[in-house]
Amino acid sequence: MVLRIYDTLSRQKKEFKTIEPNHVKMYVCGPTTYDHSHIGHMRTFAFFDVVRRWLEYRGYRVTMLINITDIDDKTIRRANEEGVSFAEIADRYMFDFIRALRSFNIRLPNIMPKATSVIADMYYVIQTLIDKGYAYVAEDGVYFDVSKFEDYGKLSGQKREFLLTGVRIEPSPYKRNAGDFALWKRRKEGEPFWHAPWMDGRPGWHIECSTMIWKYLGEQIDIHGGGTDLIFPHHENEIAQSEAFTGKKPFVRYWMHVGMLKIEGEKMSKSLGNFITWFKALEMAPAAAWRLYYATNAYRQPMNITEQGIHQAYETVKRIYRAQQALRQAIADNELGDESVDVTEYMKRFEDRMDDDFDTPGAVAAMMDFINAFQGKIYRLNEESARTVLKTLETMMYILGLPEVSVDERTARIIDEIVRIRSEMRREKRYDVADRIREELAAAGIELHDGKEGTRWFVLP
Amino acid sequence: MVLRIYDTLSRQKKEFKTIEPNHVKMYVCGPTTYDHSHIGHMRTFAFFDVVRRWLEYRGYRVTMLINITDIDDKTIRRANEEGVSFAEIADRYMFDFIRALRSFNIRLPNIMPKATSVIADMYYVIQTLIDKGYAYVAEDGVYFDVSKFEDYGKLSGQKREFLLTGVRIEPSPYKRNAGDFALWKRRKEGEPFWHAPWMDGRPGWHIECSTMIWKYLGEQIDIHGGGTDLIFPHHENEIAQSEAFTGKKPFVRYWMHVGMLKIEGEKMSKSLGNFITWFKALEMAPAAAWRLYYATNAYRQPMNITEQGIHQAYETVKRIYRAQQALRQAIADNELGDESVDVTEYMKRFEDRMDDDFDTPGAVAAMMDFINAFQGKIYRLNEESARTVLKTLETMMYILGLPEVSVDERTARIIDEIVRIRSEMRREKRYDVADRIREELAAAGIELHDGKEGTRWFVLP
Repeated sequence: MVLRIYDTLSRQKKEFKTIEPNHVKMYVCGPTTYDHSHIGHMRTFAFFDVVRRWLEYRGYRVTMLINITDIDDKTIRRANEEGVSFAEIADRYMFDFIRALRSFNIRLPNIMPKATSVIADMYYVIQTLIDKGYAYVAEDGVYFDVSKFEDYGKLSGQKREFLLTGVRIEPSPYKRNAGDFALWKRRKEGEPFWHAPWMDGRPGWHIECSTMIWKYLGEQIDIHGGGTDLIFPHHENEIAQSEAFTGKKPFVRYWMHVGMLKIEGEKMSKSLGNFITWFKALEMAPAAAWRLYYATNAYRQPMNITEQGIHQAYETVKRIYRAQQALRQAIADNELGDESVDVTEYMKRFEDRMDDDFDTPGAVAAMMDFINAFQGKIYRLNEESARTVLKTLETMMYILGLPEVSVDERTARIIDEIVRIRSEMRREKRYDVADRIREELAAAGIELHDGKEGTRWFVLP
Repeated sequence: MVLRIYDTLSRQKKEFKTIEPNHVKMYVCGPTTYDHSHIGHMRTFAFFDVVRRWLEYRGYRVTMLINITDIDDKTIRRANEEGVSFAEIADRYMFDFIRALRSFNIRLPNIMPKATSVIADMYYVIQTLIDKGYAYVAEDGVYFDVSKFEDYGKLSGQKREFLLTGVRIEPSPYKRNAGDFALWKRRKEGEPFWHAPWMDGRPGWHIECSTMIWKYLGEQIDIHGGGTDLIFPHHENEIAQSEAFTGKKPFVRYWMHVGMLKIEGEKMSKSLGNFITWFKALEMAPAAAWRLYYATNAYRQPMNITEQGIHQAYETVKRIYRAQQALRQAIADNELGDESVDVTEYMKRFEDRMDDDFDTPGAVAAMMDFINAFQGKIYRLNEESARTVLKTLETMMYILGLPEVSVDERTARIIDEIVRIRSEMRREKRYDVADRIREELAAAGIELHDGKEGTRWFVLP
């Protein structure tokens, strides 16, 4: 089976073929950094992290870019409220975002530019659009003339005539068509600005993505990702800007969109008080549980986060780590038999699910069936088989973004000591103390395994 | 006593007065992100972190900016070696730098821009310098004409005539004076470039700092920091650019420079193989030990890092945390007496040392004398005094950047259990087991205190 990806633009699953051989250029719309990241962001970036891992598993080199929208109505408003520079707000929450990614075991992108870092490049892109007749300088800014772009509406599937005249975004008396959007906005009192060739001001909402993609990835890219809420107008406008600028189509080969998130059936919003920041989420359950929870939901569908749901994911994820640890220990202690097994079928099923537009729920199901199939007979496997089963399981875990779980050196040393004491207690038949130690450690996520080589311990997430 | 800061420009300690009331604008030259951060970087940023903490203690709001040099010969070379974009190299090591700062308990700056994020602003600054006659467009770039800037040489104290004609930096046949430096460099094959108004190319070395300061902090700032190796030509050129651009003097009120670092008496360099990255440093000793080690060396002097030195700092830092923990426990268990003490004299001495151009070695000595004075009589203090002593100590620790040391919830739970078992063993007169537990925990950095309320434990760094 070959990898097939659902492309929002063509509304179908298409076989994956890169522009450059073995190299995937991938752009994901990042956050506006004016507040803490939340579990909605984490869903999107966790998913594209899985995409990246899968593409690498399939042998591609991946260059992944996530942008930081640092200049925007929201960062400016918050900066003015606090009486600081927009850059201070933007950097504070960019640091928060980086921490959130690390904490959720989401690999950092290869390139993470801020919008302001491509303003000089926007000058060039916007001037080229003006020179080509796609954009015009008006009283209050520079606009993209959507009537000049034949394909306008192709991504969101809306009628071009409606978009030209009927939409009510960013109203301005100086626009030629109601649907025209700002590439550059004239300076307003109390707002940061740049001395652009046409007028002092700041960038419009959409131009940063088109500019960064051209600057850092090239005129055409393989994958462009984001949340479904960005399809219109953001991604529609990106296509118009980029294809008008370069004259090359398609700008993007695969448009991938991740569904929105609800909390217990309701929209997540600050006003409803059900806003779950990344750090609050990690108090509810560890990153491994969240990664599994996200993976058990089809990425294109909306996802309803519930307390029961994350609880269940946490229980499931513990089973996965238990299986991994049991295998590691059986191999380390050579508590094995002589049966040989074939794992090909399970890995094949996992691969097929991933190749089918990243069907992570199907991949998780394949992994759980794999675990169920082998768990009962670990100690009967011969060494080669046990190693193969372990390696296969760890590959699946890695692809789904389940982190390596470990304790620091200090903690390991303390656990070693308490386990030694427990062994002494058992030798002295003080089973009450020994059992209590087992229970207390289990409550702290440390599980014990009494084997013929002595007691081993392992850590659950 | 008032705060006095040694200013490299005027070669004297000057009373500290801010431009805006109660607000310090502070700029520190950051790293070129083409490789891992090392303990030389950490010395500089740890010191300016202490400066920031001290200014905040003195009631100032501090806006601190550290720049990231992402476009530079070094990032370009490494990018070409790896066959990736310069931005990929720069971001990889920017992420590494952020991690290093966090790991060394150095607070992240308020604003952390990359050089490329002010390229549009450089266009404006450079054009203004051309318009004012301070800069000229030549065949291979735009140059600053140092002969036009009367004060050239004032920071580094070099003869102006020599700098105009005798220096051999960045040679070019197109320069008017040998000492002229590039604001913009014409595009070269295999290098990233921007479509600037004068010619395609990339920024020179010095312009990013002048531009960022103007953009994010204003025309004049209070403190500008960096390593002593940056005095010439970098900071000399910054002064020329900024003062020529704004027409305002002085550009900077206090120029602060941190001395260079040696390793066992030798220059740190990759070729000598004595290059200590931040993560290698943390294998040698925890962040608390490094922070104390840095603080015990006068910031303007060169510092010689030795294995013995960091070892000694580690031992000293444990004493500090032991004193803190003993106080905390005595208060929590109410193991106190009725003596009252006055800490004013000790805090005054600490403050005086800090106010004297951040004499951190003197401040550390004051803190250690304070600890020595109270350590023997903690249990005789009354509650108010004990709380005051603790608060004073923790204030000193905070200012010197010594981190809060703690263990995670899981580890705390395990330690609680092993301590409970030890208490049982003691009741059963199994002192062999009880003592071994104490020793094992101590080896893991957990120390026990048997008080009348039972056994308490605390964590050392």
